[in-house]
Amino acid sequence: MNLSGHIADGIHYLDIRVYFEDTDFSGIVYHANYLKFCERGRSDMLRLAGVHHAALTQEGLHFVVRRIECDFRASARIDDVLMVETSIKRATGAKLVMAQAVKLEGRTLFEADVTIAMINRAGRPQRIPPEIMSAIS
Amino acid sequence: MNLSGHIADGIHYLDIRVYFEDTDFSGIVYHANYLKFCERGRSDMLRLAGVHHAALTQEGLHFVVRRIECDFRASARIDDVLMVETSIKRATGAKLVMAQAVKLEGRTLFEADVTIAMINRAGRPQRIPPEIMSAIS
Amino acid sequence: MNLSGHIADGIHYLDIRVYFEDTDFSGIVYHANYLKFCERGRSDMLRLAGVHHAALTQEGLHFVVRRIECDFRASARIDDVLMVETSIKRATGAKLVMAQAVKLEGRTLFEADVTIAMINRAGRPQRIPPEIMSAIS
Amino acid sequence: MNLSGHIADGIHYLDIRVYFEDTDFSGIVYHANYLKFCERGRSDMLRLAGVHHAALTQEGLHFVVRRIECDFRASARIDDVLMVETSIKRATGAKLVMAQAVKLEGRTLFEADVTIAMINRAGRPQRIPPEIMSAIS
Repeated sequence: MNLSGHIADGIHYLDIRVYFEDTDFSGIVYHANYLKFCERGRSDMLRLAGVHHAALTQEGLHFVVRRIECDFRASARIDDVLMVETSIKRATGAKLVMAQAVKLEGRTLFEADVTIAMINRAGRPQRIPPEIMSAIS
Repeated sequence: MNLSGHIADGIHYLDIRVYFEDTDFSGIVYHANYLKFCERGRSDMLRLAGVHHAALTQEGLHFVVRRIECDFRASARIDDVLMVETSIKRATGAKLVMAQAVKLEGRTLFEADVTIAMINRAGRPQRIPPEIMSAIS
Repeated sequence: MNLSGHIADGIHYLDIRVYFEDTDFSGIVYHANYLKFCERGRSDMLRLAGVHHAALTQEGLHFVVRRIECDFRASARIDDVLMVETSIKRATGAKLVMAQAVKLEGRTLFEADVTIAMINRAGRPQRIPPEIMSAIS
Repeated sequence: MNLSGHIADGIHYLDIRVYFEDTDFSGIVYHANYLKFCERGRSDMLRLAGVHHAALTQEGLHFVVRRIECDFRASARIDDVLMVETSIKRATGAKLVMAQAVKLEGRTLFEADVTIAMINRAGRPQRIPPEIMSAIS
């Protein structure tokens, strides 16, 4: 097992354990934490493609989330091991749309389309550098 | 100022301060935390309408988030005071769709349509009790 | 009520509501979140004394936590309104020790001694500027 | 690599990646998040010893944190892979004291002594069951 997950057939797979911090008093995983899990998946997919946040930052570049559409279908609980699946749905010069799912034993608990864009130090949209685009695809 | 915000013309308003915990290394508020801010807005709107999570829980009922569509338009930073605005867009027997926005000095940073539903102890969808429906509307 | 709390007799008081995000599946507030509540208290005490993180950052300065000793005496739950009390226990050239408590209706749930220090952009310890020291005391 | 880490010579080792969610605007890992990392270490150490939170919960038992003494020696940053080390320092009938450290490439960033106790459904202290005690030691 690799700490950053693995890629097969264009899909990135990442195992995530549910800890105390992820749950809320209703007994299940707090809804916003599925977005954290998905961000880990995106970061690790980029990492395996050779794109590191720390390096981007030194060039004054950051990925930011622009839009999310997501459905919460079922709930995860403490001790569960979830699978986060991430793939690229669309890539244009300035934006990436990622399709993401969080599954438990093959069953989809959460699904999202996440649009991310690149910004520079001034917070302005930036064309995604071609080396990143080609690394990703 | 009331800790739970206030309601005027069917819109709930809640002031939220941005603290260290809300930001990330890119210098701005971490994207998933806007969903936390919105959840605080929804909880306080319900609270002002007389609906308390602790009381619901004793009856074995919980509100859960079913779907979110959201746009991240601009960024909040440390020390900012944000306004979370929450209103009910649609209410059916089993679901509520809330329109929510996070604003900074009148400018919209974040907008979301959040669909919530009620479930019982077994995790099954439950009709929202009429006294809650009438309290909310 | 002021969003940043108030100071009386050298103690800063801040009301904090417990939301979904603060709890865990055991039904109570997740232990590490008391440290978040305390950080909000320290930030707001400094704010009322005229010290703003955003302004410090522009000078390349940050407060960092160096040491915490804390006791968890009882538990907070969803919907509770907690009072965070913060005062300065000791101040030397480079460090501040703050005494903090989180209370529920006068009962102490959590107590901490928190040592903070100032660092510069390079991460090196920095003498706390005299104007901050005098503002605080 | 095992998702739950491994135990060697009485010490539990767990690799943890630093993601966006763990950092704050000062560029480093938010201080309270080291406590989350330590809680993951404790949970996984117990898990490898055969103690599962979900199972404890069904018997109405929970571990709670009673006291923490911790020192923040240096800072972790985005993309870092941290090692959480956990061992049992003292075990009495009702309490466990765990020694924990978070390291980066062998250097200690964070150290803590964490006292945990067992409580029952009513929130009352409970003797730690002998099968858990023997599993742990």
